[in-house]
Amino acid sequence: MKKYLILLLWPLPLWLGAQVQQGDTDAFYLQKIYNRAMQQSRCYDWLSYLSQHVGGRLAGSPQAAAAVEYTRQMLDTMGLDSVWLQPCMVPRWVRGEKEQVRIVNSRKMGTIELHALALGNSVGTGPLGITAEVVEVKSLEEADSLGEALRGKLVFYNGPMDPTEINTFNAYGKAAGQRVYGASRAARHGAVGVLVRSLTTRLDDVPHTGSLAYADDAPRIPAIAISTNDAELLSRLLQEGPVRVFMRSTCEMLSEVGSYNVIGEIRGSVFPEEIILVGGHLDSWDPGQGAHDDGAGCVQSMEVLHLIRNLGYRPSRTIRCVLFMNEENGLRGGRAYWKWSDENSEYHLAAIESDRGGFSPRGFTAEGHDDVFNDKFKKAAGWLPLLEPYGLGLRKGGSGADISGLKGQKGLLFGLDPDTQRYFDYHHTAIDCFDAVNKRELELGAAAMTSLVYLLDKYGL
Amino acid sequence: MKKYLILLLWPLPLWLGAQVQQGDTDAFYLQKIYNRAMQQSRCYDWLSYLSQHVGGRLAGSPQAAAAVEYTRQMLDTMGLDSVWLQPCMVPRWVRGEKEQVRIVNSRKMGTIELHALALGNSVGTGPLGITAEVVEVKSLEEADSLGEALRGKLVFYNGPMDPTEINTFNAYGKAAGQRVYGASRAARHGAVGVLVRSLTTRLDDVPHTGSLAYADDAPRIPAIAISTNDAELLSRLLQEGPVRVFMRSTCEMLSEVGSYNVIGEIRGSVFPEEIILVGGHLDSWDPGQGAHDDGAGCVQSMEVLHLIRNLGYRPSRTIRCVLFMNEENGLRGGRAYWKWSDENSEYHLAAIESDRGGFSPRGFTAEGHDDVFNDKFKKAAGWLPLLEPYGLGLRKGGSGADISGLKGQKGLLFGLDPDTQRYFDYHHTAIDCFDAVNKRELELGAAAMTSLVYLLDKYGL
Repeated sequence: MKKYLILLLWPLPLWLGAQVQQGDTDAFYLQKIYNRAMQQSRCYDWLSYLSQHVGGRLAGSPQAAAAVEYTRQMLDTMGLDSVWLQPCMVPRWVRGEKEQVRIVNSRKMGTIELHALALGNSVGTGPLGITAEVVEVKSLEEADSLGEALRGKLVFYNGPMDPTEINTFNAYGKAAGQRVYGASRAARHGAVGVLVRSLTTRLDDVPHTGSLAYADDAPRIPAIAISTNDAELLSRLLQEGPVRVFMRSTCEMLSEVGSYNVIGEIRGSVFPEEIILVGGHLDSWDPGQGAHDDGAGCVQSMEVLHLIRNLGYRPSRTIRCVLFMNEENGLRGGRAYWKWSDENSEYHLAAIESDRGGFSPRGFTAEGHDDVFNDKFKKAAGWLPLLEPYGLGLRKGGSGADISGLKGQKGLLFGLDPDTQRYFDYHHTAIDCFDAVNKRELELGAAAMTSLVYLLDKYGL
Repeated sequence: MKKYLILLLWPLPLWLGAQVQQGDTDAFYLQKIYNRAMQQSRCYDWLSYLSQHVGGRLAGSPQAAAAVEYTRQMLDTMGLDSVWLQPCMVPRWVRGEKEQVRIVNSRKMGTIELHALALGNSVGTGPLGITAEVVEVKSLEEADSLGEALRGKLVFYNGPMDPTEINTFNAYGKAAGQRVYGASRAARHGAVGVLVRSLTTRLDDVPHTGSLAYADDAPRIPAIAISTNDAELLSRLLQEGPVRVFMRSTCEMLSEVGSYNVIGEIRGSVFPEEIILVGGHLDSWDPGQGAHDDGAGCVQSMEVLHLIRNLGYRPSRTIRCVLFMNEENGLRGGRAYWKWSDENSEYHLAAIESDRGGFSPRGFTAEGHDDVFNDKFKKAAGWLPLLEPYGLGLRKGGSGADISGLKGQKGLLFGLDPDTQRYFDYHHTAIDCFDAVNKRELELGAAAMTSLVYLLDKYGL
């Protein structure tokens, strides 16, 4: 494994004035972190470039390569102890021509074009497309229960996200199975294609893509997401009689290609073998700019290192920023990192992933290995009086896909926990763009992560 | 005082199925409120009409009259015990022709047009405009300290909102004095006009209006807000040498006109003399649609009554929704309401104002008369375990301008306390439009208010 080490001598006089003073209390130091984050952070500018100049950056795409190069260069400007690229192989899925989904037999309304996006990893329909009768179901179970009735049909998964879940990720978790597993479940019963209601509580014309996973034991049939307004329309028409739909997509999975995780770190001055990771994923879906998902998490993680340098803080432990590749449709970057880290007998004292959008932070979720979780969670919860003035709490819950495989190292895994109300307006769409991100909200997330890193570094776990 | 009483018999069978059951715990009932709010609330549709069809609705304008009529009609659809209009006289300020602010002597850049909005209540410059040299200050105190040096000049108040204040309202409170009092303070020293940096932490091209208050003992000179980008530009040019600016506005204060507060209530079944008020202000600034400020607060307050009806809840106390007129540039609606309420020896057990935008709610602030505040606050804080699952807290702080005059009745005054990060992106601008409001965030605010009303009604204070 090749490491590109860039060792720089940081110009000392630039930050001496900002150094932590001996007498600083933790509360005072957190205040410093926040003040600096709201005045001198660079994350919003980085996100502007990543979103508006690089744009959507699906793993294996030229844009993903550009994102690797851009973020590596930015990390290089910070005077870190090392910056390197960690190779990994990634799938290379391409969307091809604009998808078409069209109701072809509506007597009332003529031919109706639907707002559609092929699901990531899906096969295409072939250049001539597919025309078939639609069968609506609300769940995977309902599809199974219909069995042979699905043969030769297009199965339309129309289970909505539950709007009464206050945390929208809970609603997403309950509804996402249709998108991920719906194609293979329908294919086992002879279906020829799948339409999926977009995963959002909004009613609008914006289709949401996202990955599907084909089972090994079922034919691979094409799957396309349609907007929620179109899902409602299709459902109404189905109540009046049979509906035939034409769908066409030319997406395909090409051969795997090489890519990278981008890594930068500040070596710990006392316990360098104890690693505190901050990270997000650098790849994004292709239709939009991947601003919230997960450009925000990447630039916030980079900002943690930048703030530490800017404040002149010398960490006792190693602070490492990892921008993971291919979270969206393969998790290959995460897997490569876990394997490499375990092989090198590393110990991640803690890891913090930001992958829930750049919204106003409300705290952190935490998970960990059963052997250690309760004790470590309790210790982290002891810092709540310092975090609560910034509106931050701590609750048990998932951390992030890219760091989930580090659980075996028996540190504590955190997820930044922002306000969730707007995330699924943008998630996996053409409107996940820079202008949907608020500068202050983004910066507050970076400050929250830096504050937690400071406490983890100072007190351990 | 004339009351338009519309008494309707609510069709009982429609809501019987939704009625609160004897065995419902408070936690279960709050869950019901939230579920209903996220599925059947009408506030987002009302806001769409108020923002997109009525639009900006400064007190005394035809749009304000349309807003009165529209909201009265909507309250009339809810089967309340009474809906009425409460008259009040309001100032009638008109903006006139598009403002002009222009740097006229920049050698480098030629004539430079700035993004400008006259401050509300300001006099105009006269049709020929004013051209004068600019003097920059950062505060009212700095203006006073310059004294005679301001004679014949345009005073440019360029004190920025402090980006390090986590709660943006604190930053606003510290900076707003320049806008409100700057004109008269400068006029006392002979200044001929005032430019004010827009009140936002963003750097952009969007000017923010807002009211000024002329002192009786100073000449009335015109005042215009310029965007933050333009404020930065002007400040840079001033560092290079004298800058002359041409400003022109034709705004003027016309004669007072009649308007109304819009009121609807459900009479209490056990303690009808104990009033729980929910409210916002119906007027808004003219350049945008007044969506966050304060269309959101109005439709959330209306939604409280709608949810109560929709759930079939019979309150013990009187629940009253008040949409106040003229909060922005006179507070006449509020004053008329306090006077009328005091004259009728009313007792407001509690009042909740929503006037901080339709953002994700984080709880409530509360204030009250010194005689009773601590005890009542303590009692309300006892409900926190019920509210915290919805991300709601309670802290001491201001309630709302329109209800502040009810303090003498010795109830508890609350302000809905949403996330504050985005509010001053939109506040008093042309971009405070419907599309800046998120449906779920708006509905969650209405659910939070309804939950607090439920607890106030059930347990008193």
